[in-house]
Amino acid sequence: MSTGFAAVDVIRAKRDGQTLTDAQIDWVVDAYTRGTVADEQMSALAMAILLRGMTPGEIARWTAAMIASGDRLDLSTVPRPTADKHSTGGVGDKITLPLTPLVASCGAAVPQLSGRGLGHTGGTLDKLESVPGWRATVDNAAFLRQLQEVGAVICAAGAGLAPADRKLYALRDVTGTVEAIPLIASSIMSKKIAEGTGALVLDVKVGSGAFMKDIDSARELARTMVRLGHDSGVYTVALLTDMSTPLGCAVGNAIEVAESIEVLSGGGPADVVELTLRLAREMLDAAGLPDADPAKALASGAAMDTWRSMIKAQGGDPDAALPTARETETVRAERDGVVTSMDAYRIGVAAWRLGAGRARKEDPVSFGAGVQLRVRPGDRVRAGDVVLELRTDDPHRVAAAREEAARAVVIGDAGPAGTPLVMERIA
Amino acid sequence: MSTGFAAVDVIRAKRDGQTLTDAQIDWVVDAYTRGTVADEQMSALAMAILLRGMTPGEIARWTAAMIASGDRLDLSTVPRPTADKHSTGGVGDKITLPLTPLVASCGAAVPQLSGRGLGHTGGTLDKLESVPGWRATVDNAAFLRQLQEVGAVICAAGAGLAPADRKLYALRDVTGTVEAIPLIASSIMSKKIAEGTGALVLDVKVGSGAFMKDIDSARELARTMVRLGHDSGVYTVALLTDMSTPLGCAVGNAIEVAESIEVLSGGGPADVVELTLRLAREMLDAAGLPDADPAKALASGAAMDTWRSMIKAQGGDPDAALPTARETETVRAERDGVVTSMDAYRIGVAAWRLGAGRARKEDPVSFGAGVQLRVRPGDRVRAGDVVLELRTDDPHRVAAAREEAARAVVIGDAGPAGTPLVMERIA
Repeated sequence: MSTGFAAVDVIRAKRDGQTLTDAQIDWVVDAYTRGTVADEQMSALAMAILLRGMTPGEIARWTAAMIASGDRLDLSTVPRPTADKHSTGGVGDKITLPLTPLVASCGAAVPQLSGRGLGHTGGTLDKLESVPGWRATVDNAAFLRQLQEVGAVICAAGAGLAPADRKLYALRDVTGTVEAIPLIASSIMSKKIAEGTGALVLDVKVGSGAFMKDIDSARELARTMVRLGHDSGVYTVALLTDMSTPLGCAVGNAIEVAESIEVLSGGGPADVVELTLRLAREMLDAAGLPDADPAKALASGAAMDTWRSMIKAQGGDPDAALPTARETETVRAERDGVVTSMDAYRIGVAAWRLGAGRARKEDPVSFGAGVQLRVRPGDRVRAGDVVLELRTDDPHRVAAAREEAARAVVIGDAGPAGTPLVMERIA
Repeated sequence: MSTGFAAVDVIRAKRDGQTLTDAQIDWVVDAYTRGTVADEQMSALAMAILLRGMTPGEIARWTAAMIASGDRLDLSTVPRPTADKHSTGGVGDKITLPLTPLVASCGAAVPQLSGRGLGHTGGTLDKLESVPGWRATVDNAAFLRQLQEVGAVICAAGAGLAPADRKLYALRDVTGTVEAIPLIASSIMSKKIAEGTGALVLDVKVGSGAFMKDIDSARELARTMVRLGHDSGVYTVALLTDMSTPLGCAVGNAIEVAESIEVLSGGGPADVVELTLRLAREMLDAAGLPDADPAKALASGAAMDTWRSMIKAQGGDPDAALPTARETETVRAERDGVVTSMDAYRIGVAAWRLGAGRARKEDPVSFGAGVQLRVRPGDRVRAGDVVLELRTDDPHRVAAAREEAARAVVIGDAGPAGTPLVMERIA
């Protein structure tokens, strides 16, 4: 590995629109991992990458450098086919929570390495940490054992796995550099390739609440990731799914866990159930289990059993009460009519401001904070009806969140145009 | 002051090409000064400003916020007219060193608050710290006393003066965000306005070794700064001067001090003497001292006397030997001919790599390191003649520096086209 670079030269090259060399990429990713390149240097580089872009060759090399920054897991001792899912992040996107035990209960093993909240979207680990006792950190031996015994693990990527991504992910969250296709693609795929899964289903979100606001950039991201997966021998499929409206009715941490448990109990909002089943189907097909029946596993309670085992295996108490926020305020309809739209981005920002997300990477999240939707697009309301509940531990946060949340809800005379939840499939 | 912002919102706004509001600018500068906005956030914002630009209104507000981040000095007790000079930074630009005592010896008071090395250009404080015993840090009381008694102070801006700039200046150096006109203009002018000088002469460098490579951007920077100065009641003049070739023959720290002492002794390279006298004339005119004669003050030794007093007042020993580098290597002419050009940027980078500058803001500089020019453009050479000396404490640094330095020197058959040293004057 070359040591002849100065970080400033690499930053300047990208800033001025040049294509970084393989040696520059290898060096900067490695040096950042080891701390020779400082956070403030990497954030400037990330902003330059966001505004200047990267070629497919740069993205592939960056991903390889992230994988090479750490270990690669070997799942060959797991006696079931492995399949994983990754979402690019949306508002109210708790699908991983019911999906992972569901697919495991159908015979696959799901090695789900997840992240924390990034920008206005929540993080799976932040959500699960609201379950009393549950630990996000699992060492490699325990990870393999749980995968063999329970078939389902949701945990933080170990310090040894793509450590470059671990650092960069936290940094991007607080520096306005989340929305860069090269960095999103390489972050996701480096972790998924390093974790050793045999098959991967990508849920690429499109719409106001997603990082990709339009279908063209979502398609570009999906194709970039599918290519990175195939080049590394991972069977990879992507679905483009709608994220103009939050998924389900809960946007936060503990309240999303509660909604996931409803789904595992056979209930829950229709859109959450639909997407969970569709992704389960893709994962089971990709894992070579076309005869498995996820709807049946949900109805029979088999998925719920796996959920309970999965939570317990990481120290959590599936029967404990979930944390609640100290304060609840309501947002009411200003007129009679039909809910035309509920903007996912604004609701995500409101939940973030209420304490469900972070302003700085060192900040804790509030488990109870968030936004609970009391209506969904298409519902009829009367003036004065509660449309949203705002939950927070800090009453000072309500004013800013209320403004954003209230603007998210549009009430009109006619219902919304129906957008399909699954928009495209890219394989 | 508003506290309702998240740093990420401000970064995103600029990243997406929006004009920042006065409230956003006030908040982010204040919060960065207090540490609420982290280095990695400010560096991402700086990169976004560099790539997206700022309106004149944003620049004026940013400058005002930087001034408001700290104290403003009151120089009304100084019994002489005050005048200061600032250079936008060039290679071998040691002009401040002879100029400050020269102008003081002619009857003005020069409150010169200087900076450290930024990118490939050296910093006045780094250079002066090579004088044994000399201290860059002077408290406000000592600053005023020295200004009254000696008439000349070169020191670091106190912690209380534009503290936002102090932090940002060090950050930009290591994050590839130096070359942004809004940040350069506001950095310079916030310090100069806060230090309380009555008149200001700006030396805006143009050419490969300057941050402004072309005369159009140099002119834009000069006009931006002249406007900021006039709006704040400081009489401000700018000269655009050539920086395609290093100034003088020494590029480093201690070797530039040695060359400055030559000038104060009545010798020194012609270009350094010319620019020193021209800037002295502008400062003395601006200070209302049109009859002062800087050439005479140089020849009489009056300027040298003030230099010695100024160095001693800050603990320095003007008679002590200056530090030298452990190793000297030479670069030789590869053919007979005339030196057509000596590229300032490449020579600056070579000096930086030899240890005269910093790779990270925490790094020390090497006082003895640098590049000594043994020839100047227009000089006749024979193959094998020494054209450059490379000086360093760390022999491992020579290879990379040699490559850059060797490419800086072009030998041809005809002499260079003459470029005037002072290209334009903007008032």
